[in-house]
Amino acid sequence: MFQIDLNCDLGESFGAYRIGLDEDILAFVTSANIACGFHAGDPGVMRKTVALAADNGVKIGAHPGLPDLQGFGRRNIAITPEEAYDLVIYQIGALSGFLKAEGLEMQHVKPHGALYNMAAGSEELSRAIAKAVYNVNPELILFGLAGSELIKAGEKIGLKTAQEVFADRTYQADGTLTPRSQPDALIQDDAAAVGQVIKMVKEGAVKSQQGRDVPLKADTVCIHGDGAHALTFAKNIRKELKQAGIQVTPISTQE
Amino acid sequence: MFQIDLNCDLGESFGAYRIGLDEDILAFVTSANIACGFHAGDPGVMRKTVALAADNGVKIGAHPGLPDLQGFGRRNIAITPEEAYDLVIYQIGALSGFLKAEGLEMQHVKPHGALYNMAAGSEELSRAIAKAVYNVNPELILFGLAGSELIKAGEKIGLKTAQEVFADRTYQADGTLTPRSQPDALIQDDAAAVGQVIKMVKEGAVKSQQGRDVPLKADTVCIHGDGAHALTFAKNIRKELKQAGIQVTPISTQE
Amino acid sequence: MFQIDLNCDLGESFGAYRIGLDEDILAFVTSANIACGFHAGDPGVMRKTVALAADNGVKIGAHPGLPDLQGFGRRNIAITPEEAYDLVIYQIGALSGFLKAEGLEMQHVKPHGALYNMAAGSEELSRAIAKAVYNVNPELILFGLAGSELIKAGEKIGLKTAQEVFADRTYQADGTLTPRSQPDALIQDDAAAVGQVIKMVKEGAVKSQQGRDVPLKADTVCIHGDGAHALTFAKNIRKELKQAGIQVTPISTQE
Amino acid sequence: MFQIDLNCDLGESFGAYRIGLDEDILAFVTSANIACGFHAGDPGVMRKTVALAADNGVKIGAHPGLPDLQGFGRRNIAITPEEAYDLVIYQIGALSGFLKAEGLEMQHVKPHGALYNMAAGSEELSRAIAKAVYNVNPELILFGLAGSELIKAGEKIGLKTAQEVFADRTYQADGTLTPRSQPDALIQDDAAAVGQVIKMVKEGAVKSQQGRDVPLKADTVCIHGDGAHALTFAKNIRKELKQAGIQVTPISTQE
Repeated sequence: MFQIDLNCDLGESFGAYRIGLDEDILAFVTSANIACGFHAGDPGVMRKTVALAADNGVKIGAHPGLPDLQGFGRRNIAITPEEAYDLVIYQIGALSGFLKAEGLEMQHVKPHGALYNMAAGSEELSRAIAKAVYNVNPELILFGLAGSELIKAGEKIGLKTAQEVFADRTYQADGTLTPRSQPDALIQDDAAAVGQVIKMVKEGAVKSQQGRDVPLKADTVCIHGDGAHALTFAKNIRKELKQAGIQVTPISTQE
Repeated sequence: MFQIDLNCDLGESFGAYRIGLDEDILAFVTSANIACGFHAGDPGVMRKTVALAADNGVKIGAHPGLPDLQGFGRRNIAITPEEAYDLVIYQIGALSGFLKAEGLEMQHVKPHGALYNMAAGSEELSRAIAKAVYNVNPELILFGLAGSELIKAGEKIGLKTAQEVFADRTYQADGTLTPRSQPDALIQDDAAAVGQVIKMVKEGAVKSQQGRDVPLKADTVCIHGDGAHALTFAKNIRKELKQAGIQVTPISTQE
Repeated sequence: MFQIDLNCDLGESFGAYRIGLDEDILAFVTSANIACGFHAGDPGVMRKTVALAADNGVKIGAHPGLPDLQGFGRRNIAITPEEAYDLVIYQIGALSGFLKAEGLEMQHVKPHGALYNMAAGSEELSRAIAKAVYNVNPELILFGLAGSELIKAGEKIGLKTAQEVFADRTYQADGTLTPRSQPDALIQDDAAAVGQVIKMVKEGAVKSQQGRDVPLKADTVCIHGDGAHALTFAKNIRKELKQAGIQVTPISTQE
Repeated sequence: MFQIDLNCDLGESFGAYRIGLDEDILAFVTSANIACGFHAGDPGVMRKTVALAADNGVKIGAHPGLPDLQGFGRRNIAITPEEAYDLVIYQIGALSGFLKAEGLEMQHVKPHGALYNMAAGSEELSRAIAKAVYNVNPELILFGLAGSELIKAGEKIGLKTAQEVFADRTYQADGTLTPRSQPDALIQDDAAAVGQVIKMVKEGAVKSQQGRDVPLKADTVCIHGDGAHALTFAKNIRKELKQAGIQVTPISTQE
């Protein structure tokens, strides 16, 4: 049976500031990555988002980021592997507090933004992050870019991993994402985006910009949660995946 | 048998900034209140302080504070009870991450500075804090000012509490601390300070500034951890308590 | 001739977070209070907001707040007068940098949120704030709640002041605002709100909730800048003030 | 006549945290780089440091850094040139507030830590920083690593610049500093360190690790301000420069 998880970044509001259509998008995804207060989110937002995800039956993960609220965690910061280890443990722990208070379990950890991207290409950083996750709770599932160093580090240390793919991004012949700086980085057509995911799940491959099929494991798809189009797309991809005979289900329940 | 816990605030360094003689004071105390990154401390400092306390056989507690690094958590901030609930859960959770990674258990929670003082006099705030502690883990021991609203709220919700007393502060006829703004607020003489604690433990009372003995339960004494005199005092009080037949032992091991 | 200034808080976005309809509201106000990075705003937002205000011919003021981004500067923090002095100078200075870079002059300073409210009732805090403004530049105009301690302190030190009134808030017999906790604190009817301002400007008085007219000087009206209704109201009050023969003009150009 | 400026980073304390021997080192240096609240310093520390420098007749400059208190501004952050422009203006402005309040003039701007190092090798970042300084006040002197992109960008835009050299660092044949990762990066011998500076000033050259003399302009020497050895070294180099016939005087007073 074909299965896929749909994950979305949530809980990115902060104080008086609101970002994201959290309440709406939760109807369509199966895993929620909740910001932990470093790049976005605050304790009150975390509590509310945990409750909201649980109400929608969506599995919850920590979404640790770099300590850079102003940059929304998207600017690379030259942290050491030790600093990465520490900030990941801190943020997983912080979110765990709210889960414990609600009697809930954490499903996964997905690094955010620049931390995610830096880890994808750095064995050293990935090892530190994977170790942090494993040391806090070896049952947690580590989300990372499909084929990345983070996935490799997670597997090496003994974590269950989830390879993340993107519906609306094109891929290169070596299985990496086409950099956003290139004109053909994005798939604008929704049907093509959905088609790419269906092919990934069913064939374990993606058609690269160079024309060749590249093998790629797809455990979870990143779904955006802001803007009207994001909602429409989330609704559509969920329906079309189902029609294609692919079960949309949280990563922790996949067989 | 007479027993007392000696607690000290630790892990208050931040980034390149160093505060406190953490390594030295750990030889004399039995419970460590570790800052959680809001008023002091950072993820790296937390990890190191947890390890240091464990190496010294000192029990570990969370020391959540107001989000005010510049004010070191000592300035009152008009937070709502809900905000108190959220920030206490967040900080307990964050420290728990480091304890889990080391296979350690958290013993207690002691609010810091202005949060401690505000809670002491506010039933509403105390109820929120006690609920936060209880919801994360009902086995945690709640530290609060002896006789305060925080102790009452902790007992009401079903937490084990530890009534905290001060060696170097004088008390009023109603059992409250003499405000620091008054000239006789501090006990300058070390022998008198130690004597006050021994009386508290053995007689369950303190001699107030008004001359009368006031009943007071003493479960744990606040020990300072910065400056040469603090170290000398900690060493002395530990020795003299022992000589007075009072066992110095962590609150969680007291009978 | 009757004259009034319309001021609005602007530049309250932060990083990826957007708040306020800055571009739209600038068409209707004459003075912009620009956040300085403590309770809201960041360096990039400040630069853009300064340029935007200047493009619209709107006078620019600093809007210093408490160091509390999470609370949007609305939570009282027990700062000392010295700390108030320092943080006001810092924030005026920071905004001045952007004005200098654009060859612009700062018109005024209006404390934000909790700082504004705390100052309104505290002679000591108001004196510190007025001194900060005066010491940086004695030509700056100090905005404060009409009849407040801040206005008194400003006048005492020799600053030009602007007494701020509210269109949509009711007043008490002693000239203070009805606390928001009371049911009759807000004026829901737009026509009544505009009427209150016209009366303030023309008669120098406001009808209190107790029925009596209370003398009140109105130099500037606080206009909200977020939400569709705020825009409509701003447009309306501007038009109706004009029709009532009241010139809407920046405080620094009033005769 | 041979002349040299001695500059030192100051005002790096924050809240309850103390760093640096500010009061002592001011006796030996001629220019103070005062932290502006991003990587270190806070409004109160800035006010006090400005007064302290003025009392010692030391010229004052802004020391803007990256928004990274935890990393003390030493971790590279991938900011855009526009973000660099904005944060430099903000921080110069903030410090200017305190100078204006004291009736003092700012002499110079020296970027801190990672911002200094990133700028040294980036034409784009240097251009943004130089433009920020120039736009706020074209009379300011821009401090940068001798021979760096920052010096070039400053000269290009029309700023007076000060080429900074290091007494205790070795140089490569191309005039760059030997990276700290290499074993011979530091000059441990104080006499050799002083000698290197004297040669730089008198001969306009430094002996590289490769043995050849490399031309280098030395306008100002970076003096450390923390630790007992730093004080001794500062005292010695000042005395020995004088004995070598080199006048130690602020950059703005050099002929």
